[in-house]
Amino acid sequence: MAARSNTIGVSEEIALYEFRNMTEQNLHHTIALLTRTPAALEALLRDLPETWTLRNEGENTWSAFDVVGHLIHAERTDWMPRVKKLLQFGETEAFGPFDRWGHVRECQGKSLAQLLDEFARVRSESLDELRALKLRPEDLERRGRHPAFGAVTLSQLLATWAAHDLTHLHQISRVMAHQYRQAVGPWSAYLGVLQCAGHSSP
Amino acid sequence: MAARSNTIGVSEEIALYEFRNMTEQNLHHTIALLTRTPAALEALLRDLPETWTLRNEGENTWSAFDVVGHLIHAERTDWMPRVKKLLQFGETEAFGPFDRWGHVRECQGKSLAQLLDEFARVRSESLDELRALKLRPEDLERRGRHPAFGAVTLSQLLATWAAHDLTHLHQISRVMAHQYRQAVGPWSAYLGVLQCAGHSSP
Repeated sequence: MAARSNTIGVSEEIALYEFRNMTEQNLHHTIALLTRTPAALEALLRDLPETWTLRNEGENTWSAFDVVGHLIHAERTDWMPRVKKLLQFGETEAFGPFDRWGHVRECQGKSLAQLLDEFARVRSESLDELRALKLRPEDLERRGRHPAFGAVTLSQLLATWAAHDLTHLHQISRVMAHQYRQAVGPWSAYLGVLQCAGHSSP
Repeated sequence: MAARSNTIGVSEEIALYEFRNMTEQNLHHTIALLTRTPAALEALLRDLPETWTLRNEGENTWSAFDVVGHLIHAERTDWMPRVKKLLQFGETEAFGPFDRWGHVRECQGKSLAQLLDEFARVRSESLDELRALKLRPEDLERRGRHPAFGAVTLSQLLATWAAHDLTHLHQISRVMAHQYRQAVGPWSAYLGVLQCAGHSSP
């Protein structure tokens, strides 16, 4: 019994191996997605007519242009700053609040082309910083404190960064499709994107 | 009065000009979007880990891989074939039915890389055909017959082609985000894409 309490059994070793493998894979998958988002937005939006990129879904909603500004703002103030805060302070200090309208300043006087360039640059810088941390599987279980949720893991924060890209790609495709709501005539009934309940929220 | 019935007034001329300008612009906007979709999917999906591209939302739902297959299948059997049928037969002959599971054959034995190449090629061929028609604004009001809706205009069909790209970009981002539903932990409450009611429909 004494020997058993000092070692781990085979099944526990396998579980630990699987856990490490899973979290390592998740980090790899997360970075793979985060790397591609700027190029996907570039391919979709660069030089696209403004009817697609500057129109929104109505008052207090965002256009594709606004969303790119929001992604830049989140890159600057949210993702890597939170990662670093979590690693430095753990649960002792909560993440700062995030300004959902912070992109208004970010976008001021800029063209969509400038925002796309800027997003590609800041994302690339963030990923350089993230890779330089050389995170180990056990680091991904370290905890920080979210002002609303309480304890969150680094793994959850990084997964959210990737899912946040997807939420905004989802939003951009919905906002753009909304511009053709009338133009498609009776087909609107068949187009899932026009039924999306996320209308006017990110 | 006789003179008036043979000519059109200034306001009618302006209305006609605006109508032509609007429909011409729509065609230009539609083509601009249709041109970009293959490159956007290429940038997002090429060489992305299979956890993102091959997983779906559950039984009888589609992965990103399936969606690219569906876009190829629609390109081959739906869009330009319907445009040509409308121009040739007007309302006298209804469009053929579209097989929503036709992509299964389209995808068989192929890699995602092959499907992305194929989509880029068939889309480019479709747009060459569309441009070669040299559609005039008045052509866009020509009518065909949809098997379920009845009379539809060419303008509506072309707008639907673009909105259909967006519905599937919206779907792909939702299907991919679904793979991180557990990984994001409490943040799932804040991510619009995870609330999308389109879950398991295109």
